[in-house]
Amino acid sequence: MIDRYTLPEMGEIWTDEHRLSLWLKIEIAACEGWAKLGKIPKEAVEVIRERASFTWERVQALEEVTQHDVLAFLTNVAENVGDEAKYIHLGLTSSDVLDTALSLQMVEATDLLLAKMEALEAVLRRRAIEHRDTLMMGRTHGIHAEPITLGLKFALWYDEIRRQKRRLDIAREEVRVGKISGAVGTFANVDPQVEAHVCQSLNLKPALISTQILQRDRHAYFMTTLAGIASSLDKMATEIRNLQRTDVHEVEEAFGKGQKGSSAMPHKKNPITPERICGMARVVRANAQVALENVALWHERDISHSSAERMILPDSTLALYYMLHKMVQLIDRLQVFPEQMKFNIDKGLGLIFSQRVMLALVEKGVSRENAYAMVQRNAMEAWNTKEQFKNLISRDSAIRKYLDEELINNLFDYDYHTKHVGDIFERLGLV
Amino acid sequence: MIDRYTLPEMGEIWTDEHRLSLWLKIEIAACEGWAKLGKIPKEAVEVIRERASFTWERVQALEEVTQHDVLAFLTNVAENVGDEAKYIHLGLTSSDVLDTALSLQMVEATDLLLAKMEALEAVLRRRAIEHRDTLMMGRTHGIHAEPITLGLKFALWYDEIRRQKRRLDIAREEVRVGKISGAVGTFANVDPQVEAHVCQSLNLKPALISTQILQRDRHAYFMTTLAGIASSLDKMATEIRNLQRTDVHEVEEAFGKGQKGSSAMPHKKNPITPERICGMARVVRANAQVALENVALWHERDISHSSAERMILPDSTLALYYMLHKMVQLIDRLQVFPEQMKFNIDKGLGLIFSQRVMLALVEKGVSRENAYAMVQRNAMEAWNTKEQFKNLISRDSAIRKYLDEELINNLFDYDYHTKHVGDIFERLGLV
Ligand SMILES: Nc1ncnc2c1ncn2[C@@H]1O[C@H](COP(=O)(O)O)[C@@H](O)[C@H]1O
Ligand SMILES: Nc1ncnc2c1ncn2[C@@H]1O[C@H](COP(=O)(O)O)[C@@H](O)[C@H]1O
Repeated sequence: MIDRYTLPEMGEIWTDEHRLSLWLKIEIAACEGWAKLGKIPKEAVEVIRERASFTWERVQALEEVTQHDVLAFLTNVAENVGDEAKYIHLGLTSSDVLDTALSLQMVEATDLLLAKMEALEAVLRRRAIEHRDTLMMGRTHGIHAEPITLGLKFALWYDEIRRQKRRLDIAREEVRVGKISGAVGTFANVDPQVEAHVCQSLNLKPALISTQILQRDRHAYFMTTLAGIASSLDKMATEIRNLQRTDVHEVEEAFGKGQKGSSAMPHKKNPITPERICGMARVVRANAQVALENVALWHERDISHSSAERMILPDSTLALYYMLHKMVQLIDRLQVFPEQMKFNIDKGLGLIFSQRVMLALVEKGVSRENAYAMVQRNAMEAWNTKEQFKNLISRDSAIRKYLDEELINNLFDYDYHTKHVGDIFERLGLV
Repeated sequence: MIDRYTLPEMGEIWTDEHRLSLWLKIEIAACEGWAKLGKIPKEAVEVIRERASFTWERVQALEEVTQHDVLAFLTNVAENVGDEAKYIHLGLTSSDVLDTALSLQMVEATDLLLAKMEALEAVLRRRAIEHRDTLMMGRTHGIHAEPITLGLKFALWYDEIRRQKRRLDIAREEVRVGKISGAVGTFANVDPQVEAHVCQSLNLKPALISTQILQRDRHAYFMTTLAGIASSLDKMATEIRNLQRTDVHEVEEAFGKGQKGSSAMPHKKNPITPERICGMARVVRANAQVALENVALWHERDISHSSAERMILPDSTLALYYMLHKMVQLIDRLQVFPEQMKFNIDKGLGLIFSQRVMLALVEKGVSRENAYAMVQRNAMEAWNTKEQFKNLISRDSAIRKYLDEELINNLFDYDYHTKHVGDIFERLGLV
């Protein structure tokens, strides 16, 4: 991931130093496991624990020679440990260390993501409650439909992020597994109890069965879950961009002091943050596709997934973390223009009440088909003449046979549309 | 989906007739809900229940005129019901019916998929136990590594399918939701109790909040779960294709009586079923990508997802069902050639024992680095000269300083590699 979108706490998880420090933890835990079985002297483990260390620079230099990252690492550690180093990596295969470390990184990354999702949930909850009654037009197909409130929109997103958080919790469990089962997963050179000790000490579950590696359906599940979350953020960002368009202009991304909107057009305030989020969502989705293609490896493993994972796992968690971070800020400070919402509602010539008029006619005994036709006729005329729908309805003698003036006045009342907003908020626990 | 890959029970779920029959169920349940609230006469609901029906031909003819599928359907139903039809669809929006019906279809499709996955699990369990001790070469990077047993391979898949089944169970819950909340999700024209009644009578949960539609993160989650399962099948199929290659030839797809392998080459027996499964997996993965792109709809809905879902939901469930069905047959009847497995193991010149020799040297006090070098030297020579590795080791004076003849004989023994197979099977509950 490029620096521009790398937040430090998530970036830290994916540094080479951190990865190697996890390798070291795993190697030491494996030594402890062997010591418990009496295969390594306890004193040797003490020495290893004390002296084992590495530097990224030295490991890199060694990899130039070995062309094997884990061997380079082990060589550097051995340089620092001395003779007791012969007990390190006993019976292990590189992937025991690599895959178990990768699981730890995914769990760490997930914990950061979950915390950020909780923050997003909280800010959506606050803004939903704040705007529970802020009337605005609901739109389907980009066309005015019936009024909603802005609070409903935030509440919808709140519920969706909550769902996504639950899914990420499940995905976390699916990758919270380690494997220390050796070169082809048979434990030929390592005891299952070593695996048990390593996993337990790192708060992982041992995979019930593995090959040289953990099976990639787990990583794919994790990645498609991230892609799902990114797509939900994409939706929210798309909505904000749509509502900020000059021709709608009901909300606006908060502008920082000194922020510039356009190099050429000083009047512009552009929704750059949601646009960025939409763009990044496309990358996370594409990466999920890579993860799915990584599932079908050959035999007891081929290493074609490795290069891809070095890119997609850091990139996707980094991107998603950044997107969530920005979305929290965006929602937190989103400017809302209730007057403009009102103005836009009025653009509709009162046509939003068409269904109500139709239902009133049905209630008065008109068939659904006839009622639909009577209303549609007037709606079309309003649209063509730009005259208020209510006036046309009041003048339509066929309709006036069923509806009197008072009833028509009642039909054209916005409270009608918002009467259940409170119920919805209650269902969501938003109070 | 083309007929070629359509199994009848899954095909049935996605027929136009079935979809419309679900619409009818939903419309009738809505009438019942209204009747409970006293908004529709109970007698009218009786009449509707009795007379409501449609024919796909008539609905199609009507859609030519209305250009709206639900209105065409309602018109045809009204033709059959008569006057009471005015109570049908009261306060509903088309998508209340469409989306709730789609959820039912996804649940029905999932139940078929789950049953087929259970069948696959059972056949994998059986073949795993059958071949628990069938020795074969384990391969990493396509290169011989250490021996495993064929049973381990089946057991690995068994565990993976079990995981995927759990995931599909979760996805089923995520799509087992209905919505009868009206045009923009505000219940302006329909009471939440109608939604509650409809959902309860169809064994769905009401979405806590919706717009005109159920939010598409649910459908995307469902589809990425299908893509994950397809990718696991892709892995299994790829493995079978790899093992069936003439140059490996350890397993073979069972050939039906009268089956022909090639129009030009009568000797050929090709792994056509796993190849087909691999191909179809690519389609299901691509469809998941579409579902993720469907999440970001505009405002209270746009209908851009609809055309796409008409293709990807039937196609993906149909394809996956077919793939599972074929995989059950493939595994059930897969031919296994233990003699060829033995022959292939012997190709390796005994180099698979290299790690054991290295570990034995370490145990005798040689440093890991030196032991690695001593073993590598002989391994390279075996590879170059095609002489058995064991002979070279026996002749290497540096090694013979640490290892005597008896020890060397013990080191070259396959039981060493399979000693924990029983433990792994026990962990998996495979007994
Ligand atoms: N079987 C193996 N298990 C783990 N690492 C391996 C294995 N074989 C090679 N490697 C190393 O893993 C790395 C793969 O590089 P990449 O494809 O860039 O992820 C290289 O450092 C290889 O030398
Ligand atoms: N708001 C709506 N809710 C449900 N269906 C609609 C809506 N608007 C139009 N339709 C109909 O839905 C169908 C969309 O077609 P397609 O894009 O092919 O799935 C057409 O029959 C439209 O007339």
